[in-house]
Amino acid sequence: MSDFNYQQLDDLIHSRIRLAIMAALASLETTSFKQLKQAVGATDGNLSIHLKKLEDAEYITVEKTFIDRKPISIYALCPKGREAFNAYIQYLETILPTN
Amino acid sequence: MSDFNYQQLDDLIHSRIRLAIMAALASLETTSFKQLKQAVGATDGNLSIHLKKLEDAEYITVEKTFIDRKPISIYALCPKGREAFNAYIQYLETILPTN
Repeated sequence: MSDFNYQQLDDLIHSRIRLAIMAALASLETTSFKQLKQAVGATDGNLSIHLKKLEDAEYITVEKTFIDRKPISIYALCPKGREAFNAYIQYLETILPTN
Repeated sequence: MSDFNYQQLDDLIHSRIRLAIMAALASLETTSFKQLKQAVGATDGNLSIHLKKLEDAEYITVEKTFIDRKPISIYALCPKGREAFNAYIQYLETILPTN
């Protein structure tokens, strides 16, 4: 394998918005759609599309519930997603210089 | 600004192949097309396209010369490219968890 093989970077995570979502979920444990939207700085539509992709890959879970009778979606990393995210970061660390 | 604002990540660098190119050039100082191709693990065509994008952005320079009468292209980071790459890494470090 070459030293800087870009194909080793998980494309599903690497997209800027999905990377931001994964990073937010990795640090926040669970979070609502609204909180995630604020953290990532995305529009509703864009965020929904990318959350769905991560959900389809079983990287994240969504739980729909009610708080004060209002529907709310709670997102969290799955074990598979956490593993993929850790592998992504580890590979990134091998190719990027450390300051 | 939100904590994980994906728009802060320089899109020009973030593409997987361009990130690999920038990382390789940041560590190797100067390198030929052939060496870069081996390091990054890209095809000629794909590598050329992305090198041109980085060159157009003045992130890298290319110098065409001859070695043993064979034409050779030597690539290096420009100061603007190094600055952008450092800013990219710094922002990445703020959003990613450290192991």
